[in-house]
Amino acid sequence: MNEGEAELRQRAAAVIPGGMYGHNVEKFLWPGAPQFWSCARGSRIWDADGREYVDLMCSWGAIVLGYAHPEVEAAVDRQRSALDLGNGPAAVFVELAERFTSLLDYADWAVFAKNGTDVTTAALAVARLETGRSTVLLARGAFHGSAPWCHPYRGGATAGDRAAIAYFDYNDLSSLQAVVADHDGDLAGILLTPHRHDAAADQEFINPAFAREARRLCDIKGAVLVLDEVRTGFRLAFGSSWADIGVEPDLSCWSKAIGNGYPVSVLLGREALRDATRRYLLGGTFWTSATPLAASLATLRVLEADGAVARMAEIGRTIVGGLARLARHHGIGVRLTGPSAMPYLAFDDDPAFAVAKKWAAAVADFGVYVNPTHNWFISAALDEADVAVVLRAADAGFAAIADQR
Amino acid sequence: MNEGEAELRQRAAAVIPGGMYGHNVEKFLWPGAPQFWSCARGSRIWDADGREYVDLMCSWGAIVLGYAHPEVEAAVDRQRSALDLGNGPAAVFVELAERFTSLLDYADWAVFAKNGTDVTTAALAVARLETGRSTVLLARGAFHGSAPWCHPYRGGATAGDRAAIAYFDYNDLSSLQAVVADHDGDLAGILLTPHRHDAAADQEFINPAFAREARRLCDIKGAVLVLDEVRTGFRLAFGSSWADIGVEPDLSCWSKAIGNGYPVSVLLGREALRDATRRYLLGGTFWTSATPLAASLATLRVLEADGAVARMAEIGRTIVGGLARLARHHGIGVRLTGPSAMPYLAFDDDPAFAVAKKWAAAVADFGVYVNPTHNWFISAALDEADVAVVLRAADAGFAAIADQR
Repeated sequence: MNEGEAELRQRAAAVIPGGMYGHNVEKFLWPGAPQFWSCARGSRIWDADGREYVDLMCSWGAIVLGYAHPEVEAAVDRQRSALDLGNGPAAVFVELAERFTSLLDYADWAVFAKNGTDVTTAALAVARLETGRSTVLLARGAFHGSAPWCHPYRGGATAGDRAAIAYFDYNDLSSLQAVVADHDGDLAGILLTPHRHDAAADQEFINPAFAREARRLCDIKGAVLVLDEVRTGFRLAFGSSWADIGVEPDLSCWSKAIGNGYPVSVLLGREALRDATRRYLLGGTFWTSATPLAASLATLRVLEADGAVARMAEIGRTIVGGLARLARHHGIGVRLTGPSAMPYLAFDDDPAFAVAKKWAAAVADFGVYVNPTHNWFISAALDEADVAVVLRAADAGFAAIADQR
Repeated sequence: MNEGEAELRQRAAAVIPGGMYGHNVEKFLWPGAPQFWSCARGSRIWDADGREYVDLMCSWGAIVLGYAHPEVEAAVDRQRSALDLGNGPAAVFVELAERFTSLLDYADWAVFAKNGTDVTTAALAVARLETGRSTVLLARGAFHGSAPWCHPYRGGATAGDRAAIAYFDYNDLSSLQAVVADHDGDLAGILLTPHRHDAAADQEFINPAFAREARRLCDIKGAVLVLDEVRTGFRLAFGSSWADIGVEPDLSCWSKAIGNGYPVSVLLGREALRDATRRYLLGGTFWTSATPLAASLATLRVLEADGAVARMAEIGRTIVGGLARLARHHGIGVRLTGPSAMPYLAFDDDPAFAVAKKWAAAVADFGVYVNPTHNWFISAALDEADVAVVLRAADAGFAAIADQR
């Protein structure tokens, strides 16, 4: 059976709606971009045609130590040789909960699930159960998962799905204060990401004063502050991504990097919310599977032992600095935003991402995979040779853009 | 580190709300029941204290061929040696979609996710997008997942979560007709399970006339019929659990047994719903992970090659027949309901499940694990020796109940 890109696309068109869903649909990519993949190791990934890339997408943030990291895989092998799924949890379920709660000062308990959506959905329910109120505030345009309440896209959502949600503008103090006032007496919680990382938009760091105001408003209103660390967690800090600004949430949601590619998410919370959490129906067939929890325990161990978070920031700074220099050299106006380990590159005067797609296509020809409309993810597996490949490809990409002007 | 049952319970009490969530919370079990597990192979599972059981719960339906089935694990090893999670899908994503759509006449496309909840939630959205209407009908008391709209428990749900849902009584034609009439003009779909398998209640086979009426009402109203096969799929039939009654849904939701323990779910649907599905935001970080899809492909292959579905029905009949005979012998009034591969045992005059829990505890002492308030799951790994162990334990359990009367 031929399993190259063209063949897989053709076959997928017959049996998958639109031939693809999620991040890999054609409209987010350049013409001819790979949609299917065949192999991945360390910093490298191979598409279905066998083309090799230095990977700067890291499976949309799930890979933090590099693909198939030996220590993580060994932990998975050990756990799998005894038990993966089995009526209920294994010992690693308790060990990992102990690890997370010891890592984060505010976290007194943990609940494991599969998707980020599982734990953001649970966080809203816990905030509502604890407060006896309904309204949860989200940043306009933010993405908190794929259930109908989670994101700005309306297809398939009912009015009721978002009836108890109201919106503020990220980092806009007065918009937050206004929406809190609008819902006075019914405010259950505020949910936000550590920085603004909406797709297809320049990224924005949190204004510490905004984070403190969200905390203060929750405190005075008796509401619950929820930090959505699904995309950021353990890539920007070994612990809370808000540790440096000194603001602690009441609940936090994690997934992606915590399992280095294995499917696991976790809701962490304060003692005061333990009973409300207990009263919410939590459970899914695969939520106690032991191998992803073993993968997570190993991932945290390696992240800490290797100083991987500092390393990702450093690699990211080298890449971002190099990109800025190269773009200037070619006379191309770009904006590089977001933390260095989750950078976002946008081209000036490129509202439909035509230039970004052309650049990403050229860079792919030189063996580097990035997405043109979404932030990238730097893993700790990138070495100096990988960074050199990235900067050489970027140089060729900017040259290709400059040539066409 | 001591990882026995008592120690794990004590440690879990500190770091997990209520010490446990999901199916394994204490109120669903007997005093001293195992909550933590250490190993599983074939038909057997070992608790954290190393006690061995013939397992009749099969991880709540996910295990269909027995734990760690060699062919499934070999397929996982092969896929994992190349790629598990990797920016997008691998070839197996297409192969498995082709397999499912070739197996079910009405299914023209497939969408893979992680939880059953992911695909039941998507099914409602697709029905709403296709029809441009909101109301979906569910059976009163049914369980379709753990999101707030999915089940009868209200904690943490907002009014809006269920504002576009209305309820009928399973198998009650006039209640279905009445609620369809009540929502005339806004009916998007009807969602139901192949048989009634609510927890803590006698199970009930579908009345074929009821299934046909649901189909007819959807047809005349232009609404979408959704079959929730998450718990039943590939345990009761190799294909649709409704094949024998000749009623086809428009969409169906599957998980649990399709991956023999690996985390995967799938939404299958008709050609006419392809475009609506394409327009719904589908996606999750781990939804394209390749090893669970490889596990599913292998599971379907083994199920078919081994005639495993017929085998499970046969083993189930032997067990159910034996239980009925033994209960009669001991003068204990019981009700055995549901399909033989998913049987449910209830004791007469036992509204709080005190007798059922006592029986399950006694049976566990004799090396058989069942849940006292939920249907069981028969796997194809049970052999004659296992069945003998089950019936010996059941005998001892009934004797223990009879003694105490």
